[in-house]
Amino acid sequence: MAHLIDTSGAGRWQGPPGDVHSALAGPSSFTRTFPMRLLRHAILAAALLLPLAPGVSAQAPAGSIASRYRADADRLIDAALADSAAWAKLARLTDGFGPRLSGSRALEDAIDWILAEMQREGLENVRGEPVMVPHWVRGEESAEMVLPRRQRLGMVGLGNSVGTPGEGVEAEALVVSSFDELQARAADARGRIVVFNVPYTGYGATVRYRVQGPSTAARLGAVAVLVRSVTPRSLFTPHTGTLVYDSTAPRIPAAAITIEDAELLARLQQKGQRVTLRLAMGARMLPDAPSRNAVAEIRGREKPDEVVVMGGHIDSWDVGQGAMDDGGGVVVAWEALRLMKSLGLRPRRTVRVVAWTNEENGGRGGAGYRDAHRAELSRHVLAIESDNGAFKPSGFGFTGSDAALARVTEVARLLARIGADTVTSGGGGADIGPIMELGVPGMSPNVDGSRYFWFHHSEADTMDKLDPRDMGLLTAALAVMTYVVADLPEALPRAAAR
Amino acid sequence: MAHLIDTSGAGRWQGPPGDVHSALAGPSSFTRTFPMRLLRHAILAAALLLPLAPGVSAQAPAGSIASRYRADADRLIDAALADSAAWAKLARLTDGFGPRLSGSRALEDAIDWILAEMQREGLENVRGEPVMVPHWVRGEESAEMVLPRRQRLGMVGLGNSVGTPGEGVEAEALVVSSFDELQARAADARGRIVVFNVPYTGYGATVRYRVQGPSTAARLGAVAVLVRSVTPRSLFTPHTGTLVYDSTAPRIPAAAITIEDAELLARLQQKGQRVTLRLAMGARMLPDAPSRNAVAEIRGREKPDEVVVMGGHIDSWDVGQGAMDDGGGVVVAWEALRLMKSLGLRPRRTVRVVAWTNEENGGRGGAGYRDAHRAELSRHVLAIESDNGAFKPSGFGFTGSDAALARVTEVARLLARIGADTVTSGGGGADIGPIMELGVPGMSPNVDGSRYFWFHHSEADTMDKLDPRDMGLLTAALAVMTYVVADLPEALPRAAAR
Repeated sequence: MAHLIDTSGAGRWQGPPGDVHSALAGPSSFTRTFPMRLLRHAILAAALLLPLAPGVSAQAPAGSIASRYRADADRLIDAALADSAAWAKLARLTDGFGPRLSGSRALEDAIDWILAEMQREGLENVRGEPVMVPHWVRGEESAEMVLPRRQRLGMVGLGNSVGTPGEGVEAEALVVSSFDELQARAADARGRIVVFNVPYTGYGATVRYRVQGPSTAARLGAVAVLVRSVTPRSLFTPHTGTLVYDSTAPRIPAAAITIEDAELLARLQQKGQRVTLRLAMGARMLPDAPSRNAVAEIRGREKPDEVVVMGGHIDSWDVGQGAMDDGGGVVVAWEALRLMKSLGLRPRRTVRVVAWTNEENGGRGGAGYRDAHRAELSRHVLAIESDNGAFKPSGFGFTGSDAALARVTEVARLLARIGADTVTSGGGGADIGPIMELGVPGMSPNVDGSRYFWFHHSEADTMDKLDPRDMGLLTAALAVMTYVVADLPEALPRAAAR
Repeated sequence: MAHLIDTSGAGRWQGPPGDVHSALAGPSSFTRTFPMRLLRHAILAAALLLPLAPGVSAQAPAGSIASRYRADADRLIDAALADSAAWAKLARLTDGFGPRLSGSRALEDAIDWILAEMQREGLENVRGEPVMVPHWVRGEESAEMVLPRRQRLGMVGLGNSVGTPGEGVEAEALVVSSFDELQARAADARGRIVVFNVPYTGYGATVRYRVQGPSTAARLGAVAVLVRSVTPRSLFTPHTGTLVYDSTAPRIPAAAITIEDAELLARLQQKGQRVTLRLAMGARMLPDAPSRNAVAEIRGREKPDEVVVMGGHIDSWDVGQGAMDDGGGVVVAWEALRLMKSLGLRPRRTVRVVAWTNEENGGRGGAGYRDAHRAELSRHVLAIESDNGAFKPSGFGFTGSDAALARVTEVARLLARIGADTVTSGGGGADIGPIMELGVPGMSPNVDGSRYFWFHHSEADTMDKLDPRDMGLLTAALAVMTYVVADLPEALPRAAAR
């Protein structure tokens, strides 16, 4: 029942439809299979009538990916940019269910809705693949400066943190700006609430304090930790995220505070003031809860056992709407698949969309996918994860063999008209990491990430931060890349086994 | 005991010291009183040794303000830029006392500290001038979406709002994007919580909904109002500010919500969802409380009864630190006066600094100043208010006669070296408004206000938003303008009585 060829006539002239790609895969040239007179007509028609499809060009090398897939790529791009469907779908998801922390009812309700919508859209093999996930709950929480004067602090507990005793922990603060400074003042840390006031210099460099800070301070006898939010910009906005307890240290409660308050505490200490803080957190870890990776496919027409998998993660932190991180990633991948379906594009290989669960505080979705699909991973041609925010794309990052990099770089040329044709070395994502470790080539969209960490893991991660046009562009980029890689006569060459 | 002339020798060559300004006020030219040979030496010395004082120039018109005050202006500028004194003083104020709502202990403690510091610095006639101020208290407050699903809303009650009954108000929402839309849906407003989701198009245009929205909705039978925060940018940051109840309408409780949540509610209503909200506010107005305008002076050496008054307001909303609005304005004016004192610059007229109280929710400080000083207002030469944020200055706005505008424009040329020499027509401030209405020329610094409304009346109005260098520049601009206007042989000409 798949419509492999668009029979409406519209756009057919632009190039060979999906079914005849194979005829062009060999040495025969575009000009030989498409007489020059007709080609000139086509170019004229394109110039006069179809300014939205500027990709048709006599310069495309004979038999090249650009020439073979130009028409299908343009149909996908045009469809993705024709409306605000991706944005509207994401709004239905995030406005309807709110944030979706692992273990929450909201997450499972959102997954139910996604599966029902995928069915309704006629996608294939729609299913929830079971995964058990950590079930951390935040509870009531607050932080306060007690001395030198009382002031409520803007805070959000770190994911997976233990709670405090009911009345909270009250102790003198020790503010440090680095692990080195903490070690230099190790003797002062015992019994204190250690405050890491570390300016943002980049996520990788700064997030260490959120992830490792609690156990590092606990090892020196600290009773709790407050971490300056990992963000370059704040309007009194605390940002959560996971911590990782080291098994050799006591588990102490930890929360993020705002840049504003972290700087305040640092200034007061700098002036020689004794600063006392109180932290109360009702956080606790419950037994693992059932969740699911939501999956849908278009089965391949020739090699259905070979798979291009793409997606994002459906879980989020329990703040904001998880619109950017990563509802948008789920939706653009899902929309890319829906567009193929609605345009009747069925590639040689199976394209599978996955909304992974539990990326944020456990990674069980990605691990579960690896475990459930272990037998077919050797036939996973490519895995794409969209978890960098559904912003304006510039292209993709790719991890795999040099030959495969060259191939996907060629595919990306089809995205030149939307400025998404730059492929850089190195790509991936937390949910596809487990299968990339087993040899599956990995990819992720490169997007305008300039504002990503302003919103990340905060109440500000909401629909209004995403632009319908940019989401359309990202959908287009994913649709073209995924469709073409799934349809190429030969699978992307893998690197030699390590 | 005032040091009218810097006797250290350093910098003396740069131009006439304060005491001899009068000698240059007549037609005698700079070059006639300062032989050309010496002038050339001076220019050479300036070029070689004193790059921080580039203002000395043979081009200054004979007898001009630029030539007479160049040296003093440069001393003030250099002193203001020599360290981070203004920023550090503001940090002591705001970190030490926090936000300073009218009626609060924090405000009066801050005023006590300011008066003590002013005394310690040797400023003259230091005093608190009593004013009774409204005493509004916020109490506990919260807002929540109840349907279609429960979600806490980011909120802050509007200043001077009444509270809700103890259990709060729960009602269906009516979201509108303008007063016109509210009128068009007037029949739907009864019994509802009206939500004004009005995009920011400029403070003046948008703040109407905060100020007048509650009574406008109450007149149609609404039971409460939520207003989208008046700001162009949000990281889930609600912004408070005052409302004004119309005496013809019932007083209903009102709060600001974030852009994020206002957009969410609008989207849900747009989709046809029934949205129910709950608002709980413990706000109440207590009897008026005693406060003070904090005042300090340098008495004029020739015309002490003529006054240039400048300042900002020491009260703030009870969120953030009131660092930008308007602790910074108070401190830069105060620092400008302290610099004159420390440099031994005593102008002809009195320079008076005032930290006005209760600008935010009553304006009693400005009115009280007018009432207490009514007899001397005819001898107020100029009033300057710095309440636009202590950001990088570009010059001043001025309200007064054309002749006075020309004079202050000439004075501002002394600020060319720091880029603060542009004077525009129209200036003033809420606290000097009452005396401007009685004929006192008014002025306010023009500053880089691009971020002002990101922080305004929110928890994000904190020290980290202000730059020490920019505060030094603003201090310099105020010091030079105020000192020179206070010292000019003739008072600024007033407009003819209206």
